[in-house]
Amino acid sequence: MTVAPTAIREEMITRVEEVLRQRFALHCENAETYGAEFAALWRATADHALGGKLVRPRLLLDIHRALAPDMGAEPSIAAVDIATHLELLHYAFLLHDDVIDGDLTRRKRPNLIGELAAASPGSTEEDSLHWARSSAILMGDLLLSAAIMGFARADVPAHARGRLLDLVERTILETVAGEHTDVALSHGIIASDVDTVLTMSVYKTATYSFSLPLRAAALLAGSSVSAEETLHAVGRHLGLAYQLQDDLLCVFGDHRTHGKDAFSDLREGKETAIIAFARSTSAWPRIERRFGSADLSLNDATEIRDLLRECGAERFVVGLIGDQLDAVYALLSEAELAGEISADAARSILVSASRLEGRQS
Amino acid sequence: MTVAPTAIREEMITRVEEVLRQRFALHCENAETYGAEFAALWRATADHALGGKLVRPRLLLDIHRALAPDMGAEPSIAAVDIATHLELLHYAFLLHDDVIDGDLTRRKRPNLIGELAAASPGSTEEDSLHWARSSAILMGDLLLSAAIMGFARADVPAHARGRLLDLVERTILETVAGEHTDVALSHGIIASDVDTVLTMSVYKTATYSFSLPLRAAALLAGSSVSAEETLHAVGRHLGLAYQLQDDLLCVFGDHRTHGKDAFSDLREGKETAIIAFARSTSAWPRIERRFGSADLSLNDATEIRDLLRECGAERFVVGLIGDQLDAVYALLSEAELAGEISADAARSILVSASRLEGRQS
Repeated sequence: MTVAPTAIREEMITRVEEVLRQRFALHCENAETYGAEFAALWRATADHALGGKLVRPRLLLDIHRALAPDMGAEPSIAAVDIATHLELLHYAFLLHDDVIDGDLTRRKRPNLIGELAAASPGSTEEDSLHWARSSAILMGDLLLSAAIMGFARADVPAHARGRLLDLVERTILETVAGEHTDVALSHGIIASDVDTVLTMSVYKTATYSFSLPLRAAALLAGSSVSAEETLHAVGRHLGLAYQLQDDLLCVFGDHRTHGKDAFSDLREGKETAIIAFARSTSAWPRIERRFGSADLSLNDATEIRDLLRECGAERFVVGLIGDQLDAVYALLSEAELAGEISADAARSILVSASRLEGRQS
Repeated sequence: MTVAPTAIREEMITRVEEVLRQRFALHCENAETYGAEFAALWRATADHALGGKLVRPRLLLDIHRALAPDMGAEPSIAAVDIATHLELLHYAFLLHDDVIDGDLTRRKRPNLIGELAAASPGSTEEDSLHWARSSAILMGDLLLSAAIMGFARADVPAHARGRLLDLVERTILETVAGEHTDVALSHGIIASDVDTVLTMSVYKTATYSFSLPLRAAALLAGSSVSAEETLHAVGRHLGLAYQLQDDLLCVFGDHRTHGKDAFSDLREGKETAIIAFARSTSAWPRIERRFGSADLSLNDATEIRDLLRECGAERFVVGLIGDQLDAVYALLSEAELAGEISADAARSILVSASRLEGRQS
């Protein structure tokens, strides 16, 4: 029996979606015990959490299949289970991030907080936002707990579960440390420079979005510790490339196609690598004037974009992305040569990397 | 060798404090990798988290000793370990609670948020508060994770660990549901009445502060499922009594001795059982006028207190506390008679209850 890899991949992702849907349905049902408002919060959360692109589950399942192509049905069940908990962890981080950043939208539509605030009968806007944000803090706690519980209960041998828990604990610590640095940067409590911003991005995004899925896949596939360490490094470079790509898209991309709010990073005054580089150039005084204005006009934003291009920030960040991908290629070649990971697994990761490059257009 | 129970109790609590101190010292050290600001957040958190009265660890250790008096040193290590994670869970809940409630003090001194805000170089008060609250959200996430990880790694047989995780998951769900209801009450999204407020208090406070320590003690001692269920019910009644006592103290207690901010519940407009009862009386229109004013004068507060006394709210809540303690006595007598729990364990719980009554003065 031969099944095309794409079909298998889609079947596994469909299973992740099904498991997530079932889990949320159960949560919604259980929540009724605690009152209509609490059940409504769960239903709204399910709506938003189930709408993701499942980037992290896909990455785990792809690499797991590549690392353990001969595994039967059972390890796949564990992989699907871990994949769903990666998604819950991701959504928990998103919720608390949105509270901290004051975000009310995601991809041009209201996020959970925006929806709860709009639906709230609060007498003032401040009241409505307080209700919505408090709900998001609490729901984030529940999803964070559910994710950790999921890893703790994974149907894998005890020693693998122990390693998985250590991995998840370290991942959560790094993600939170990265977010804390991001908040400190936005308040000017930590001075912004390229190195600090890149390190922050690795901690805040790359560790949980890329290293964790890759390492969890290695762990489930019974790969060696050295293979897992290589995948950790690969994940950090890939994740940083992904974040830098995202930063570029927001400022220089075609807003009609990439789905992000046009120039939202410039309006929010986000400390990206683009901005950190621009700070070190003579163009900065002209950029700084309007950078971070919530009411930045399209004209002003376009002008800042042009200045960021002229001062070399775009070219610099494109170069950084190239460096990350070069590092990924080098790490994978070395690991393949050393027999640490198979050619198939290396190719799978490179396919993920090339999909990433494809987003640039 | 005979050692007085009090000495054993204090020794075990000293061990809980030591383990907590060591754990925080390690966290502070590890945090240095992620920068000075993140390490400073850990140090400030350690200062605040280590200052508690360890009510929950004490309860667990007392009842565990009573349920399993013949156990050797090893189960005590597990009990101390679980006890420290109860305290971390408690502090995680406190942090997110303080963010949601906007609290900057605890027992008349700055809490973690108040301290971080005061130390922040933020250009505006709003900036400083945002920095402090964002830090508290993130630190709450880390402590919540650490607590769950601790339960997941407990050195107990696999089936006991499974039950412990189920117990902790259910506890977190109920606590969050209770807090969510509390926020909904404070915004008038859910109408306040005595039943709703009592149910909210059981979920928000009694479950994690009383049921969880009692049930975890039963689990560690290898008690029967029915004994654990009895202790669950006992914990809910005891926890509710404790909360009602706390509510009474804040309004009717002697503020020179009980350490709470005088009349803070009245200034914050907190929906306690006292207030829920008063709402159903003819005194309410006179109370409502100034209830929930942040700048309530001592005179006004004293007047509201007198009205709450006259309308029968104090008497009503004192009666409710009596009901809870009666229920505890009945449950324990029945369990003792059925051989579910020992006379010694029942007595230990009653001692805890009597300590509770002692706070009333």
